[in-house]
Amino acid sequence: MTEGSAAQGARGPAVNRTELTPLLFVERATTVYAPRIGVVYGSRRFTYAQFGRRVRQLATALVRTGLRRGERVAALAPNVPALLELHFGAALAGGVLVAINTRLKPPEIAYILEHSGARLLFTDAELAVPLRHVQPLPSVEHVVTIDDPEFAPGAARSFDGPEYEQFLDVEPDLALPFRVPDEDDLFSINYTSGTTGRPKGVMYTHRGAYLNALSEVIAHRLEPTAVYLWTLPLFHCNGWCFPWAVTAAGGRHVLLRKVDPPLVWRLINAEGVTHFNGAPTVLIMLINDPAAPRTPLARPLRIATGGAPPSPTLLAQWEAIGAEITHLYGLTETYGPHTYCDWQPEWNQCDAATRARLRARQGVPSAVACELRVVDEQMRDVPADGETMGEVVMRGNNVMRGYFADPTATAEAFRGGWFHSGDIAVMHPDGYIELRDRKKDIIISGGENISTIEVEQVIAGHPDVLEVA
Amino acid sequence: MTEGSAAQGARGPAVNRTELTPLLFVERATTVYAPRIGVVYGSRRFTYAQFGRRVRQLATALVRTGLRRGERVAALAPNVPALLELHFGAALAGGVLVAINTRLKPPEIAYILEHSGARLLFTDAELAVPLRHVQPLPSVEHVVTIDDPEFAPGAARSFDGPEYEQFLDVEPDLALPFRVPDEDDLFSINYTSGTTGRPKGVMYTHRGAYLNALSEVIAHRLEPTAVYLWTLPLFHCNGWCFPWAVTAAGGRHVLLRKVDPPLVWRLINAEGVTHFNGAPTVLIMLINDPAAPRTPLARPLRIATGGAPPSPTLLAQWEAIGAEITHLYGLTETYGPHTYCDWQPEWNQCDAATRARLRARQGVPSAVACELRVVDEQMRDVPADGETMGEVVMRGNNVMRGYFADPTATAEAFRGGWFHSGDIAVMHPDGYIELRDRKKDIIISGGENISTIEVEQVIAGHPDVLEVA
Repeated sequence: MTEGSAAQGARGPAVNRTELTPLLFVERATTVYAPRIGVVYGSRRFTYAQFGRRVRQLATALVRTGLRRGERVAALAPNVPALLELHFGAALAGGVLVAINTRLKPPEIAYILEHSGARLLFTDAELAVPLRHVQPLPSVEHVVTIDDPEFAPGAARSFDGPEYEQFLDVEPDLALPFRVPDEDDLFSINYTSGTTGRPKGVMYTHRGAYLNALSEVIAHRLEPTAVYLWTLPLFHCNGWCFPWAVTAAGGRHVLLRKVDPPLVWRLINAEGVTHFNGAPTVLIMLINDPAAPRTPLARPLRIATGGAPPSPTLLAQWEAIGAEITHLYGLTETYGPHTYCDWQPEWNQCDAATRARLRARQGVPSAVACELRVVDEQMRDVPADGETMGEVVMRGNNVMRGYFADPTATAEAFRGGWFHSGDIAVMHPDGYIELRDRKKDIIISGGENISTIEVEQVIAGHPDVLEVA
Repeated sequence: MTEGSAAQGARGPAVNRTELTPLLFVERATTVYAPRIGVVYGSRRFTYAQFGRRVRQLATALVRTGLRRGERVAALAPNVPALLELHFGAALAGGVLVAINTRLKPPEIAYILEHSGARLLFTDAELAVPLRHVQPLPSVEHVVTIDDPEFAPGAARSFDGPEYEQFLDVEPDLALPFRVPDEDDLFSINYTSGTTGRPKGVMYTHRGAYLNALSEVIAHRLEPTAVYLWTLPLFHCNGWCFPWAVTAAGGRHVLLRKVDPPLVWRLINAEGVTHFNGAPTVLIMLINDPAAPRTPLARPLRIATGGAPPSPTLLAQWEAIGAEITHLYGLTETYGPHTYCDWQPEWNQCDAATRARLRARQGVPSAVACELRVVDEQMRDVPADGETMGEVVMRGNNVMRGYFADPTATAEAFRGGWFHSGDIAVMHPDGYIELRDRKKDIIISGGENISTIEVEQVIAGHPDVLEVA
């Protein structure tokens, strides 16, 4: 009696399998958390029922443009409701979201549009202005402009085509399934800067996005009472997968056009914010703003930071108002967070200096990341002595599927069967990693990677500049 | 430029995929939580480093018996460390765990041993005594006896073969990987009683076990500070997947040979228990015991209950000491919990009677369960009116792979592409289900299903009984 034969003969069609996809989270939130406010943006407030309806309307409208399964849908927008809705609606329509870094210059944006082959572009009206001079936009056939009358009222129309709310104004097709044929299909492509100077398209799958979102619900302790403030750009690694994680938890998204410190502090108080994410530079700006509180906050506040270790001063400043900072590390290629400086309850007994030293370490792989090594040039593990440096390499469910339409770069990044981060770290005896340097010549500004070559090209583009080094 | 061709050519060997398995959780806990106490049983305390070593030793010893991949490993034991270790060690050795209900009679145990084809049996010394008369045990070639000198010191040896600690006393093979070739492979088989009177072997996969454990970390808010008391039998749906969930969270397992109320209350205080699970009958017994506290507990206590809705009185009694009760519902065929009465923060404003009424509902599918319907005989959804009754059917990642070596029963359970629970429920307008009846003639005792035919057979087996109806 072998189990194989029994199982094969017995298994019904997919009775015991649902392909993993973040779409399951929005489907669930739309029913389970239907009457709860899921999205806040200025004076606009959507329940999860309303949000779900808008996502379905968006997907229905996308399908009606003739979108084919696997086709790319580009978006250029700050953290407005439309971009959050695109993080579900594009996939519900069978499309692949390409959320573009809003800090890029028009030629780089044009390169991404061309490389991704997106026929549809959703663009914020204000951000569209510099794109006027790139006409026609490569590959793009339809432009949907997102107006923001409350926070950017003056933006004039730069492209033909409908406004977002007008585009959305269709009867939702309730037959569109929150299911995908294969969890390894593409969910999104996130273009990132590399040393080559040309953005590379990092491919995320439905499975990877789903698993990382679940892991974040756990690591950040997202609950139905969570109120998440969107200080982190949605375009940045799809907001570290938080569009899906916050929705999975039934928490509330509080959107934000830009990180304006007095507004951030006002929202933290008025909306009862419990969570936000940002690079240390953002945290420094916020805590040193005159609007920052001087006494402990009314509610617990959990902050995740990455891109650089938080300094002891910064930690002390936030601790003083009762906030808890988690240090994490990852790359666009790892769906954002890969390691967490997983805080051992026993460490609370340490003095402030020791706690800050422990907190500065990038930590250990998340509950779903699992596979990380620090290796020498021959792919041998460096000793876990906290001193020997090596490159951080990862593999597994939160490593990208590869670079879109770039097998050479993918093969190079995946050499030896592991993703090479380009980051140099030591491994501590307790298994926590600590970054020491970057292999690549990369400048980090506001948590975003900027390649020196890109900067050189921009500077070199100025008419008064002759040479750049 | 199609994404398909780029992706196919670019993808390295499994760089972006790790097969899902609960083994990943114990590997991670063994390193990340190495110095923390992971397991407590009476005076025995194991750190996660020690627990991981014991799991590796167990797997190494199992491999040395000649265990083949996919072969079944049977266990008959109360909630002792050995059975928790088998929940990882059997799979690490490539085996499939069959944890047997300790309340079954020898002929039923013999049937399970024969049907599963297990060549290895791990048995608690005390529980082995009634098995003496079943000689030779069907299929079993090796018996490992688990002594329990602290809590069951008097048990004499019933079978030849090593004691568990002696079996474990090998140098662990560190090359055994915490990985599996295919996440859809079998992890365990849990025999459950049905109306046919013969236990059926419910097949769990690595993928299903992994996803459900992650979902439980979220639903039960398991954190590294969690201290989980094992009042629920480990043999029952593999302890509702909690061996993996608590380990994934880096929490602490507090084991318990049997639910002895004064001991339970002593452990809740002495070990700082934060979580336990049990059927309402268990909760009634505990809260009405003279040892129960009359004032609020020192720490928050989260309890999950299932098998029957908790009564308003029971809820009030536990609320009075500060405990929070979650009501859930599931079957062995759904890895234990499938739905949770997901508590909306807004409901805290309701009066006690309304809260109790809301809490009595079985709720909505968990974050990973997703797919549940209440249907009529033609598989049409009943109206969500809270009145029309129908059968609860489920499918997806937390439905079993099927019944082991029983394609007929599997096909019957999976008819129409959904798992038929046999439970009758109504669907409320907000999407929460509430059970009304059971289709099957099943008696529930202490949260365990007992088929009436089984009971009839036991009664009929008594020499003074002539006929049973």
